[in-house]
Amino acid sequence: MPNTAQNDDILGRARVRDNAELEAYYDDLAELDTGALWTVANSIEPWQPTPSSAPILWKNADLRSQVLRAIDLVRPEDAGRRVVYLRNPKRRDVSAACGWLFSGIQVMKPGERAGAHKHAASALRFIMEGKGAYTIVDGHKVELEGRDFVITPNGTWHEHGIAQDGEICMWQDGLDIPLTNALEANFYAVHPDDYQTVTLPLNDSPLTYGSPGLRPELDKWDKPYSPLLKFAWQPTYEALVKYSKVTDGSPYDGVIMRYVNPVTGDDPMLTMGANMQLLRPNEHTQAHRHTGNIIYQVAKGEGYSIINGQRFDWKEKDIFCVPTWMWHEHCNTQVGDDACLFSFNDLPTMRKLGFYAEQALVDNDGHQILSSN
Amino acid sequence: MPNTAQNDDILGRARVRDNAELEAYYDDLAELDTGALWTVANSIEPWQPTPSSAPILWKNADLRSQVLRAIDLVRPEDAGRRVVYLRNPKRRDVSAACGWLFSGIQVMKPGERAGAHKHAASALRFIMEGKGAYTIVDGHKVELEGRDFVITPNGTWHEHGIAQDGEICMWQDGLDIPLTNALEANFYAVHPDDYQTVTLPLNDSPLTYGSPGLRPELDKWDKPYSPLLKFAWQPTYEALVKYSKVTDGSPYDGVIMRYVNPVTGDDPMLTMGANMQLLRPNEHTQAHRHTGNIIYQVAKGEGYSIINGQRFDWKEKDIFCVPTWMWHEHCNTQVGDDACLFSFNDLPTMRKLGFYAEQALVDNDGHQILSSN
Amino acid sequence: MPNTAQNDDILGRARVRDNAELEAYYDDLAELDTGALWTVANSIEPWQPTPSSAPILWKNADLRSQVLRAIDLVRPEDAGRRVVYLRNPKRRDVSAACGWLFSGIQVMKPGERAGAHKHAASALRFIMEGKGAYTIVDGHKVELEGRDFVITPNGTWHEHGIAQDGEICMWQDGLDIPLTNALEANFYAVHPDDYQTVTLPLNDSPLTYGSPGLRPELDKWDKPYSPLLKFAWQPTYEALVKYSKVTDGSPYDGVIMRYVNPVTGDDPMLTMGANMQLLRPNEHTQAHRHTGNIIYQVAKGEGYSIINGQRFDWKEKDIFCVPTWMWHEHCNTQVGDDACLFSFNDLPTMRKLGFYAEQALVDNDGHQILSSN
Amino acid sequence: MPNTAQNDDILGRARVRDNAELEAYYDDLAELDTGALWTVANSIEPWQPTPSSAPILWKNADLRSQVLRAIDLVRPEDAGRRVVYLRNPKRRDVSAACGWLFSGIQVMKPGERAGAHKHAASALRFIMEGKGAYTIVDGHKVELEGRDFVITPNGTWHEHGIAQDGEICMWQDGLDIPLTNALEANFYAVHPDDYQTVTLPLNDSPLTYGSPGLRPELDKWDKPYSPLLKFAWQPTYEALVKYSKVTDGSPYDGVIMRYVNPVTGDDPMLTMGANMQLLRPNEHTQAHRHTGNIIYQVAKGEGYSIINGQRFDWKEKDIFCVPTWMWHEHCNTQVGDDACLFSFNDLPTMRKLGFYAEQALVDNDGHQILSSN
Repeated sequence: MPNTAQNDDILGRARVRDNAELEAYYDDLAELDTGALWTVANSIEPWQPTPSSAPILWKNADLRSQVLRAIDLVRPEDAGRRVVYLRNPKRRDVSAACGWLFSGIQVMKPGERAGAHKHAASALRFIMEGKGAYTIVDGHKVELEGRDFVITPNGTWHEHGIAQDGEICMWQDGLDIPLTNALEANFYAVHPDDYQTVTLPLNDSPLTYGSPGLRPELDKWDKPYSPLLKFAWQPTYEALVKYSKVTDGSPYDGVIMRYVNPVTGDDPMLTMGANMQLLRPNEHTQAHRHTGNIIYQVAKGEGYSIINGQRFDWKEKDIFCVPTWMWHEHCNTQVGDDACLFSFNDLPTMRKLGFYAEQALVDNDGHQILSSN
Repeated sequence: MPNTAQNDDILGRARVRDNAELEAYYDDLAELDTGALWTVANSIEPWQPTPSSAPILWKNADLRSQVLRAIDLVRPEDAGRRVVYLRNPKRRDVSAACGWLFSGIQVMKPGERAGAHKHAASALRFIMEGKGAYTIVDGHKVELEGRDFVITPNGTWHEHGIAQDGEICMWQDGLDIPLTNALEANFYAVHPDDYQTVTLPLNDSPLTYGSPGLRPELDKWDKPYSPLLKFAWQPTYEALVKYSKVTDGSPYDGVIMRYVNPVTGDDPMLTMGANMQLLRPNEHTQAHRHTGNIIYQVAKGEGYSIINGQRFDWKEKDIFCVPTWMWHEHCNTQVGDDACLFSFNDLPTMRKLGFYAEQALVDNDGHQILSSN
Repeated sequence: MPNTAQNDDILGRARVRDNAELEAYYDDLAELDTGALWTVANSIEPWQPTPSSAPILWKNADLRSQVLRAIDLVRPEDAGRRVVYLRNPKRRDVSAACGWLFSGIQVMKPGERAGAHKHAASALRFIMEGKGAYTIVDGHKVELEGRDFVITPNGTWHEHGIAQDGEICMWQDGLDIPLTNALEANFYAVHPDDYQTVTLPLNDSPLTYGSPGLRPELDKWDKPYSPLLKFAWQPTYEALVKYSKVTDGSPYDGVIMRYVNPVTGDDPMLTMGANMQLLRPNEHTQAHRHTGNIIYQVAKGEGYSIINGQRFDWKEKDIFCVPTWMWHEHCNTQVGDDACLFSFNDLPTMRKLGFYAEQALVDNDGHQILSSN
Repeated sequence: MPNTAQNDDILGRARVRDNAELEAYYDDLAELDTGALWTVANSIEPWQPTPSSAPILWKNADLRSQVLRAIDLVRPEDAGRRVVYLRNPKRRDVSAACGWLFSGIQVMKPGERAGAHKHAASALRFIMEGKGAYTIVDGHKVELEGRDFVITPNGTWHEHGIAQDGEICMWQDGLDIPLTNALEANFYAVHPDDYQTVTLPLNDSPLTYGSPGLRPELDKWDKPYSPLLKFAWQPTYEALVKYSKVTDGSPYDGVIMRYVNPVTGDDPMLTMGANMQLLRPNEHTQAHRHTGNIIYQVAKGEGYSIINGQRFDWKEKDIFCVPTWMWHEHCNTQVGDDACLFSFNDLPTMRKLGFYAEQALVDNDGHQILSSN
């Protein structure tokens, strides 16, 4: 139910003028742990969302060396996870990168292994570089390569590591920890044996559920998240290329596909979704805005995005965020190659609660005017 | 996944000891809008929820006269809604009564009519006193009496009023405004004509959907909320009495029923649920705790509840709240009559997002030890 | 996808003219347990359904005395169930009343008790007369009165009886036995103890699930049928009267409501549905037709129905059927009272399999021309 | 609810001995289009299903030449479809291959095109040989190769053809026409233009929906069948090989996967399902039986199946059926290669209606004794 802002001096808004009698009344109310709604009504019932997060671009060129520094500074055994987290300047109090989403860059070296834990928050990873990375989720071990996407759903035991003969690995961790904390629902547990014992065949999850249009005949999967834990880059990119041959794509996002739970068609986890989108050479999308927050990582190519009138130039491995209800449009500046953006978001939360709203920019052929600052 | 708190000096928790080199590193990270996760990890990944709200009891004996005072102090046309809201001392910043739930007491006098508006937040009302109250939701007008429960779901036009020949009416308003704001998804609109035009038959919603085990043969209802907008007190109380004849009830809540959407069996709105429970004469339930917040209004009788070791004595029309993860148990102190508690909660939000967790108190036969303060 | 019949001598239909060479070919095919599709194609792919059942009215005035005769002729212990079944003259081979639906009139006298059994077929009963009847379904005992509707879903142990101080009882049994047999899926078992032991409180099902807009808070019902086993006449009739105040009703069926599973809003059993409809004084509905079969029992009043041009006059307790794809319209001939028709059908089967189709009669203001025969 | 057969002379079964008085009664009942249930009860309520179909193997070696003969005998324009159908000797009256399933072998030569039609029955095809085949479903054209599986769901316009530069093509057609007819719900329509106009991109369905774990971000597919119309052989075989590395497989079916609607995880059509299974070299499964009918086509390799004690030896392109509730086990007789069986079935119908039942053979290590005949 998008709406344009209006003035507050109309019927239907609070427009009581305070006076001495009212002030006395407010004092009396305060003593009872109460207040007069009309003193706060307009601020708690805004005409439309005013995002508290800032749009930010984190450049890999800046981040990478700082993240690598951490290798010598702390051990996973002491840090829990060796992660540099992205801290939105307007969301420092909740350690969020955007809205209620957390994002961090984790780095591990060959032979390292971070202990198993679980929490009420859901997590996902997008591999940025390295070889030999693996994740174990409730006993299912999956091997990971660059640009693979992997989930560690809420309540599952999970741990990460790098094979002894691997290379230094880096990935983005996305979590809904700030949301879980805001809803005062976070639990945390360390695995009783520190690490999980893996008895299931290696990569059993993608080998069982990673084939199109097929599932085990007598599958009894009944958990609220995807049994397919890893969505590899190669088939994902191929999927976009194939789809691009038969679709015009979204006016706002180009050729965009959602990672889904193959046994339901829904988002792979309850609170967070993830997409991969392909922008054709020179494609410049139109702007729209919607409730919900998105954190992007450039998977391929270079270009820029305009977010609420501000231009952010990006290239591979850069990370940027689009806060709720901010206009955004994307541009692939390459003339000869497609660009791909991985992103994750809190849209499943917004949709489940009935809070999803969307609006297309109609003026100026759907393109924003760049802010002059 | 309830868990007992443990110490943080173990493998799996952050236990890095800061030093000069690290401090320098943190400064460098800060310049990039980043931080080291291990400096905040233990605080954003708590062992279990630490509720930010206080348990509070608001006595009708205190509130009623203050609410009535507002009649002469402000007009609905100026206040938007003439409401005294319940302000949890620990949630003043978000104007919440408990967790992310809003609660207020609204009062209107005969002939008054508050304008129609809509918002992304969902709302509900529980009638406390008076005659002639009505609510209009998307053109469906329903008449209301004491202890009726009525919903005004997210995105619906709604307005309230009192018939000219009615009496001063008071009711509790429950909303998820703080949640909607926290998720930065609130929209607000004033009806273009100030008030809705009612062309549908009076009370068509309960007359169509308020019968047990039946629905219109060719019903095409496809909205995400209940087409039954009003749940009247009389059949609700009868339902509890009937059910009490064939059930032992819940060990924690006595004979408790959930208000549901009759065409799905689910909660009547996406984010908030509501229950009515009956405590038999002298019934004293056992304690449990769960994620999610509850706001109670005493519908009938008197007794007390113990919340995290603190006793709150209540009688009819008193309101109290139980914050997330706090132990709570209820007692009907009447020897000859049942007691009824109406309550609303954010449990649908918790369940949809996978955040619901519950724990029974096992010590001391399931009863809390009263705090000595 | 309703369609009007067309001629078969067009492209898209089989119109091969047989000749000697083809005849020889057919003989060769027959030897291999095969055939040429074009020799049967037009008959197995009809333009539209040709119902195999006849519309029939069974008058209570005729049936009642014959059913009562059975009391002295056979005992329930020998008959299994003392039932006179309705045998559509065109469906004798499958013992069906209409389509794949079975219907029979069962009679029992005070103190009698029919043994417990279960089967893959689903069953329902509509009480016609008597006092003291009860049914026990998987240990849930429900007491029954005139015009109550009760279900005994597929796979449940069930048995019927009459209290010692009751009166002779008669009811219609509706089952999908012919369908279950056609699908070669029928199983049958006699209870190992002949009768069920009832430990649950009397009428626990309706006392728990028979209240509007409410269900037990922590209800874990997960069976594919309704936990509400009995839908009593009194609240059903009241529901129709209430609903009639706010609806124009269906042009084809008047004020019609569907019996539903209160925890899902769906039909109470997987294969069969049931409705109760109210025709206002002198109401004469328009005609429509649809796939699926319906068996009606007059619950109140008198009138007539026109089925494929043939008029059937009915009064209370008469039973009649409308076969698939036959035009039908109903008329309440009473000037001062409403008429009520109970009916059950196989529409859930049709809908689940994607076979439901419907067509309104547009000519002659929606009314059929009576056949002259 | 499987059950072993028992004798009928016990309480709970009909065991009325007829006499002259009863015979007279039966005559009177017959005049009213009624009958005494106990005279038919035991036959319409069998202890367990007695399949009416025979298990049959149709050898490709026999069928192929006969099917090819049809090319010169009839034209698609006259035959509608040039199909030799498989006629179960016990289901000739309903033109079924097994239970209520139809199967036929269709043949077309290059440049031929069969007109577009639609029907309430659902259809599927499994390609047996040839090049250049295509199917058009509601405007979506898909190209087909050997062992591809394609669906033409109920109510969709569909047509088949062979490219001008293709080769003679043969495929198995599977339909639920007998079921649709039994339920008296069949409709048929010829396309008003004889053929569909294709404006959508070639192969848009598999290019959009044929990628694992991904779907278009803003997909609004809401039809009750799969948007993925073609399930190609190559990825299907690869899926089985991958899955075989991490599973023991089903004791009854080896490594078996179900073709599913990728946006729901359910069967691709409402009434019929399909599987592809892989039997490892020398694998011999155990026997089980279940309600529902299966028609197999050998996709790869050779071996045999034992059906109710009778051995059927098969090799590639042979077709055989397993009627409801018949014991069946499979054996791959090749020592060095896997064997693959494609199959389609009516299990979605059985499951939706609550009629699915299953039983494992426990005697003789789960293996049947071969009949001596």
